[in-house]
Amino acid sequence: MKLKSTLWGLSAGAVALLVAGPAMAEVPAESQFVFNSFLFLVCGFLVMFMAAGFAMLEAGLVRTKNVATICLKNISLYSVAGLMYWVIGYNLMYSGVDGGYFGTWFSPWSAGEVPTADFAGAYAAGSDWFFQMVFCATTASIVSGTVAERIKFWPFMIFITVLTGVIYPIVGSWQWGGGFLSEAGFNDFAGSTLVHSTGGWAALVGAIVLGARKGKFGADGSIHPMPGSNLPLATLGTFILWLGWFGFNGGSQLALGSAADAHAVSNIFINTNTAAAAGVVAAVVLTQILYKKIDLTMALNGALAGLVSITAEPLAPSIGQAALIGAVGGVLVVIAVPLLDKLKIDDVVGAVSVHLVAGIWGTMIVPLSNDGASYGAQAYGVAAVAVFTVVASAVLWTLLKVTIGIRASEEDEYNGLDQAELGLEAYPEFGHGSQKI
Amino acid sequence: MKLKSTLWGLSAGAVALLVAGPAMAEVPAESQFVFNSFLFLVCGFLVMFMAAGFAMLEAGLVRTKNVATICLKNISLYSVAGLMYWVIGYNLMYSGVDGGYFGTWFSPWSAGEVPTADFAGAYAAGSDWFFQMVFCATTASIVSGTVAERIKFWPFMIFITVLTGVIYPIVGSWQWGGGFLSEAGFNDFAGSTLVHSTGGWAALVGAIVLGARKGKFGADGSIHPMPGSNLPLATLGTFILWLGWFGFNGGSQLALGSAADAHAVSNIFINTNTAAAAGVVAAVVLTQILYKKIDLTMALNGALAGLVSITAEPLAPSIGQAALIGAVGGVLVVIAVPLLDKLKIDDVVGAVSVHLVAGIWGTMIVPLSNDGASYGAQAYGVAAVAVFTVVASAVLWTLLKVTIGIRASEEDEYNGLDQAELGLEAYPEFGHGSQKI
Amino acid sequence: MKLKSTLWGLSAGAVALLVAGPAMAEVPAESQFVFNSFLFLVCGFLVMFMAAGFAMLEAGLVRTKNVATICLKNISLYSVAGLMYWVIGYNLMYSGVDGGYFGTWFSPWSAGEVPTADFAGAYAAGSDWFFQMVFCATTASIVSGTVAERIKFWPFMIFITVLTGVIYPIVGSWQWGGGFLSEAGFNDFAGSTLVHSTGGWAALVGAIVLGARKGKFGADGSIHPMPGSNLPLATLGTFILWLGWFGFNGGSQLALGSAADAHAVSNIFINTNTAAAAGVVAAVVLTQILYKKIDLTMALNGALAGLVSITAEPLAPSIGQAALIGAVGGVLVVIAVPLLDKLKIDDVVGAVSVHLVAGIWGTMIVPLSNDGASYGAQAYGVAAVAVFTVVASAVLWTLLKVTIGIRASEEDEYNGLDQAELGLEAYPEFGHGSQKI
Repeated sequence: MKLKSTLWGLSAGAVALLVAGPAMAEVPAESQFVFNSFLFLVCGFLVMFMAAGFAMLEAGLVRTKNVATICLKNISLYSVAGLMYWVIGYNLMYSGVDGGYFGTWFSPWSAGEVPTADFAGAYAAGSDWFFQMVFCATTASIVSGTVAERIKFWPFMIFITVLTGVIYPIVGSWQWGGGFLSEAGFNDFAGSTLVHSTGGWAALVGAIVLGARKGKFGADGSIHPMPGSNLPLATLGTFILWLGWFGFNGGSQLALGSAADAHAVSNIFINTNTAAAAGVVAAVVLTQILYKKIDLTMALNGALAGLVSITAEPLAPSIGQAALIGAVGGVLVVIAVPLLDKLKIDDVVGAVSVHLVAGIWGTMIVPLSNDGASYGAQAYGVAAVAVFTVVASAVLWTLLKVTIGIRASEEDEYNGLDQAELGLEAYPEFGHGSQKI
Repeated sequence: MKLKSTLWGLSAGAVALLVAGPAMAEVPAESQFVFNSFLFLVCGFLVMFMAAGFAMLEAGLVRTKNVATICLKNISLYSVAGLMYWVIGYNLMYSGVDGGYFGTWFSPWSAGEVPTADFAGAYAAGSDWFFQMVFCATTASIVSGTVAERIKFWPFMIFITVLTGVIYPIVGSWQWGGGFLSEAGFNDFAGSTLVHSTGGWAALVGAIVLGARKGKFGADGSIHPMPGSNLPLATLGTFILWLGWFGFNGGSQLALGSAADAHAVSNIFINTNTAAAAGVVAAVVLTQILYKKIDLTMALNGALAGLVSITAEPLAPSIGQAALIGAVGGVLVVIAVPLLDKLKIDDVVGAVSVHLVAGIWGTMIVPLSNDGASYGAQAYGVAAVAVFTVVASAVLWTLLKVTIGIRASEEDEYNGLDQAELGLEAYPEFGHGSQKI
Repeated sequence: MKLKSTLWGLSAGAVALLVAGPAMAEVPAESQFVFNSFLFLVCGFLVMFMAAGFAMLEAGLVRTKNVATICLKNISLYSVAGLMYWVIGYNLMYSGVDGGYFGTWFSPWSAGEVPTADFAGAYAAGSDWFFQMVFCATTASIVSGTVAERIKFWPFMIFITVLTGVIYPIVGSWQWGGGFLSEAGFNDFAGSTLVHSTGGWAALVGAIVLGARKGKFGADGSIHPMPGSNLPLATLGTFILWLGWFGFNGGSQLALGSAADAHAVSNIFINTNTAAAAGVVAAVVLTQILYKKIDLTMALNGALAGLVSITAEPLAPSIGQAALIGAVGGVLVVIAVPLLDKLKIDDVVGAVSVHLVAGIWGTMIVPLSNDGASYGAQAYGVAAVAVFTVVASAVLWTLLKVTIGIRASEEDEYNGLDQAELGLEAYPEFGHGSQKI
């Protein structure tokens, strides 16, 4: 097969089998089971790797003195998400509606009950569990960047524990667990709202309760840039996230056991890539026009905003619609980042602009390409998730603030959290160059 | 299945089904369709990730003052490639020969025409589109490293727009679109010539039209090394490219719907890995002999040269032949890099040596292992691509030069493009150490 | 398929085919062959990428002056492993027992004998070869970190050549080649002992024969920390290793051709992730309690220790057991790292604690979840591998020491191996900050 084949060429084997009759040509049930499970596993490890993407993006965008701490937070939050989703989250999300919340802990099977040779379902239970778990972890990853550089490690980890064990699973149960949002006709294919807005709201509330970094906003209304310490690392993180998003959206088809599913996952890959590409181009062109310079971090956030935007509906749009949806996402992030600054909300990495703003946009535009969706139901879903996540996050952040405290001391913030909480430096041998911050 | 099985052991299920008769044992047509599509998607995301590999390789090999710019160029060129291949490239490459170039824009389907349940073809149309798109992006990635550190952003992006939308698709159409090279018996399995030489020629012409970096070549014939700023990042980039190459070559089998295809893709993986390994060892041994030192960047380029060399024919060679082909690639890069310096051609990352020189070598050696190939047809293909790409690139680079200009001002080059074009620093807090450049 | 399906939902196609009768519903033999081969290829490229993970982990944990050298060692050792496993290793491991060691070189097929259309076996021979080769490379990767910063390049590479061509394949043949350990009832699913302990023992003996870095241990018993130069890179390396481990353990199921295999691989993914997560949490909590600080490198090593621990048996444990096994691994590494320091054994990256100590733990705890395993047989396997690897490594390291010498000169060690052996700097433009070492 040296020549790259054209679109509709038939392989010799395909012809032979098509001739043999239609029954022979279809995917046997057990093969479907394997295909579906394999899709979950492959897409799941791609989404798992997004944890590394977030870690590198955030490590690149904070200042040197907080780099080790943000790395520690990212690997810790991924770990806690994996454990909490087992202890309570998965059952809360998928059995909660029927069985009463908190009815069954330790999902989905206990010692001695590991499923084995069964293929009564459409896929291996464990492959689905793994795929859903990494989604839960993604929600948590969104928060760490926004509240970086001034939050204490342990209160942050307590927030993550509740977010991944309770808040996200409850939101997820409303739609993916078959709850009231799914009954109301809400559409969110891979989680623009359920994952990205949930994380975005939790981050936004955290940033407000926590307050801005010292020196970020002057009393005279001035805004002091605090540039990221390692932009190639942030670029790498963005590329890793882009890679992982093929798993995020593609795996949300939940099946690869038929030609129709293969078509669907393929089109999802294309739309996902196109939206991200359009987000980059839109952000680059717009920053050139507005500022006569191109901020690399805006280009990176443009890619991510394009990805978040297409996540609510990556299957139905044409490529052109995907480009439009992603481009608007890229524009929104260029507008939202300085807007948050004006509101004196200090989001270190732009996660609120990327995940919340573009997440809402992506959710609201679903009816453009999906006839089964309505603007009303989309707004209802966005609002429901907003109200619940904001209230739950506000209660939790405030509780943590008035009890153990969430904010590092002024001295620790000045010296950096790496020294204060970890007692080490991320780059002990690299000097302090032109920026003294 | 605790014991790792030996080569030819039969699973119980395989035995049972073989006994059940040959018809039952074969892959049903729809399963073939899914396997083929899944191969494209998995290999496609691996090749997509090569964009990150190029970004890290180049970010590691340029100087600090140009690191953010090269990151911006890499994410932008990948994005533009994805859009241009949709707007025009794919149709130009695969329908152009029959339908007249520029006959059909916006490939391969428009709004409302997304293919769904069809499996008349061998794979989902979208999975093929995705796989071909990332090849187009790879061609573009090759150029950015060579012309780094002195080219302006926007002219570079215009070149990339034409390269990915027109030049690469025309070259591709000659062979993979069923054009005159494929009819002439040219063999290029995964693109040593079509992708790597095309990118290499475009980069070489760009380097010549653009001229060398200030201070690189002294008037007295001296050559001033300008060492890369972050070698572990360049190492990471090389490993990512190596990983991606399994997709690049393995996916070019275009099918995984039969045991024969599974054998083929497996052997391609082995040969790809072996050629890269031999390229590393050859480069390391040769630099030790020639210079009594081992330049890490030569080892990295040795790996890449081995990979490029095997790309024209990764299936037919024995492992030993693959090792030989890769080792020669590694040797060639050790020779070519200083040779280009002597010719005062300034290739910042060695991309011309890696992608063009090893690409020609790999293409010309195909007849060693592939009886269906001839040295004449191989030379014909190499020459045809060379003539077209050189002429097209020269016209385009020159047009850009005499109109909007392609070269940064001397002051901007001295201060670095990050400050001039982006207004930021890649590593604002890292000092300027022993090297003052 | 917009709604994420619940666990046991049947797809329409599955129902239709189940109704059509059991014969129709099963996976045809050739499809099994393709599934099994594809599993090897996907898991194989994940394990291959672990080479990048080790490179980044080690590059992040050594000091600036040795970073380029450790990158060179990592890409070189991966390359040598790939070649040696072809020249001799694979045949030694899988045919050695029957055919007499050294009976057949150049595995597993020579020029002109590439297997093609055969599907008499359970998978493509080449896919198995590729998967086993990357395991061999992993064994070698373990060694480089421990002996970093003072070993000379060429003697190190000779050791790696013998380790990958002879020592590891002999150990592997005892179990996975069907040798005396497999007959004795030893259980090591994916290689806690065969891969990780083998690498760990070779590293430990190397560290002892080589001696500690100058200045690491004071004459007064004091221990001088020599902090890693780039912790986000070490974090990235850990995430890459975590990602790769899904391939390492998941692919060791050796099959994906049935629903039972899909269940098994899925459960392996979950247990692998859970053990790593528990390792992180255990290490973080324990370091907070012991030291009132959290060392990021301990968290990273906790993840890796969790992964190594579950590798001997990632299938049988419940999720809770996996969490326990991983958590104990995380605790062990927090204890073992300072213990080695007290013994004045200088392990630069903690590889002995991670791979050897946790590898023994993981192997010994197999009987907890696997009824087919016995503590006696596990101890027998651990001891056999220990004795052989220690003796073989000691002979080889000592031979190298008394002939060509293994240790860099005191001056070269002081100036850094990058300058001495490579003549370049990993980060030529970054200054030397607060740490002067």
